[in-house]
Amino acid sequence: MAIDFEKRWGRAADLMKTHGIDALFVMKPTNLAYLTGDGRPCALGLLTAAREFVVAVPECDVSSVRRLSHATDIRSFRSEDEMFHGFRDVLSDMGLTAATIGLEKNFFDASLHEVFSEHILSEATVVSATPILSPLRMLKDADEIALLTEAARVADVGMDAAVRATRDGNLERLVAGEAEYAMRQAGAEGWATPVYVASGWRSAMAHGPASSKAIEMGDVVQIHLAPIVEGYSVDLCRTVFVGDVPTEASDALDAYLEAQQAGIGAATPGAPLLGIDAAMADVLSARGFEDAFLRPVFHGVGMEHEEAPIPGGHAVIHGEERIEHVEAGMILAIGNCGIYREHFGVRAEDTVWVSPDGPTQLTQHPTPIPT
Amino acid sequence: MAIDFEKRWGRAADLMKTHGIDALFVMKPTNLAYLTGDGRPCALGLLTAAREFVVAVPECDVSSVRRLSHATDIRSFRSEDEMFHGFRDVLSDMGLTAATIGLEKNFFDASLHEVFSEHILSEATVVSATPILSPLRMLKDADEIALLTEAARVADVGMDAAVRATRDGNLERLVAGEAEYAMRQAGAEGWATPVYVASGWRSAMAHGPASSKAIEMGDVVQIHLAPIVEGYSVDLCRTVFVGDVPTEASDALDAYLEAQQAGIGAATPGAPLLGIDAAMADVLSARGFEDAFLRPVFHGVGMEHEEAPIPGGHAVIHGEERIEHVEAGMILAIGNCGIYREHFGVRAEDTVWVSPDGPTQLTQHPTPIPT
Repeated sequence: MAIDFEKRWGRAADLMKTHGIDALFVMKPTNLAYLTGDGRPCALGLLTAAREFVVAVPECDVSSVRRLSHATDIRSFRSEDEMFHGFRDVLSDMGLTAATIGLEKNFFDASLHEVFSEHILSEATVVSATPILSPLRMLKDADEIALLTEAARVADVGMDAAVRATRDGNLERLVAGEAEYAMRQAGAEGWATPVYVASGWRSAMAHGPASSKAIEMGDVVQIHLAPIVEGYSVDLCRTVFVGDVPTEASDALDAYLEAQQAGIGAATPGAPLLGIDAAMADVLSARGFEDAFLRPVFHGVGMEHEEAPIPGGHAVIHGEERIEHVEAGMILAIGNCGIYREHFGVRAEDTVWVSPDGPTQLTQHPTPIPT
Repeated sequence: MAIDFEKRWGRAADLMKTHGIDALFVMKPTNLAYLTGDGRPCALGLLTAAREFVVAVPECDVSSVRRLSHATDIRSFRSEDEMFHGFRDVLSDMGLTAATIGLEKNFFDASLHEVFSEHILSEATVVSATPILSPLRMLKDADEIALLTEAARVADVGMDAAVRATRDGNLERLVAGEAEYAMRQAGAEGWATPVYVASGWRSAMAHGPASSKAIEMGDVVQIHLAPIVEGYSVDLCRTVFVGDVPTEASDALDAYLEAQQAGIGAATPGAPLLGIDAAMADVLSARGFEDAFLRPVFHGVGMEHEEAPIPGGHAVIHGEERIEHVEAGMILAIGNCGIYREHFGVRAEDTVWVSPDGPTQLTQHPTPIPT
């Protein structure tokens, strides 16, 4: 796949001009991967409005970065200390010491942000890089859709293995193990989130990474998978019933599936982004679950498990830009969160591509029929 | 395992008094787990110097938190917005609106730190929680050593499966799949880091999560595992040779293993913490690799993949306290980083308990003999 990185730099440079930013520090591996073709921990990049990209990596990484990265200038360091201080020289060389520099404020922790602001960028004006990086990566191109389709296929394979392993007496972590193994065989290079297998009382938790709990007859079981394939991941969640479950649980799943389909249907280009939320909320309210579901009911997904667009007020908390409308090229995980009662929770989440013609579901595993 | 959480709160309260802190906000799941027995994403805790612990979780999580958490006051919210704003009321109820509050500055991202400082703690004095939380969790008690020993056993089982799968023609991600599957069977509930399987030219990368690369004859292969068992994880890294490798690579591994043993030997209570670094550096220099290894050569491990003690200047970059001496109860991953040349890298890393009698290696997988 021949990605046109200069084009991406050009789009970034245009956004930088609009926002009065001279250069971006890029440390989040996904942003580095998007902008250079190589994202790895412990690497630090600087993209200037003049479309130069300097990257610094541990000395041992230089040969593989040369092989994989599109950066114009590859430098090396021998310690974290050298990495940070070396960038003072880079800024000075480029005449950017007193420039306006964007930092990834929803990636840098508060300590590191302080180190940067006070020691590396003491004379610069530090602003958030989010207004550049969020819109830059939000709309996916054809190559990215192809990788996301492949990640969705891998997730479907994993769900199949997980559902087959979900039975009375099996442990949650062994179900997770079957799903992981099948996804590795199918192409997964890693996981964007831990595998969730949450059974019985654990299904009522908003986040349920697999534990050593045994699955029992009558359990509601939530399974959530997020494989990474060539840097892209999807979200897929299904709810399985082991034997007979309370009518309230099967009603809830039925209502949630109906709501999810309504949400997917609302993901058409030009529609209000929060219309997806409204469409799901309407169904859930009509079905008597208005007090029982959590928000956000959807979010963007791609190189990260949660990325732009993040709906409504959640955007601010995630350090993201607020987006008003659905746009073609968005990838949305619709069905996030689920319906929760005191002793169980149900959820179905799929990854949806907003194509120019409307929503297209990428994950397609058939939801197990309640027994 | 009956953990004495009040004792932990008491130790925290003593440290808080020393540092003039009235309360700590706790959002990092590992810190929540250490202090209440329940750590989960999307939960927010407040520990006061008066030893009260308020925790807020999504409404659906309340019943499982009641079951698992030792917090004195469990509250719920329906949205992230409610979670953050609800804490303004908690602070007001407790008379802490204008108090000195510690935040996890190496966990909160810069955006969230800003939201907290400006909107939730606008009248309070915000300081770093690190001087409390780092020393609190650094020395492990007998119950924790037992869990770490179990995690080490699981890592050894995983390494065995990975080494057996490392052969000409197999893919890195399939080797990772075998290791994960074996560790799930042995007790792993998750992964503190992605499984690294880095072969051939990829072994020269400082961080090598498994890819779809095929392993070839003559490859140096680094394998790194970090299973989580009941909330605790260890680090285990081994280097495997597939067929004949250059003499420089086998010499490097031989030297690194010698250096690692010297480092482990230096981890005795009361010795200078950086003595571990010096012991390894001495051997590596004597063997001609003084320019070829990366630092830090060790770090603490436990509920997190990297935690206190973090040696020397690395501590500052990680937002950690600088620690001067080895102490009984520390858990150290010794052998971090490795020797790197342009076309390969070798590494061996083990998790070591500093017992009152000296260093005890918890991970014990025999290093494959170079062929």
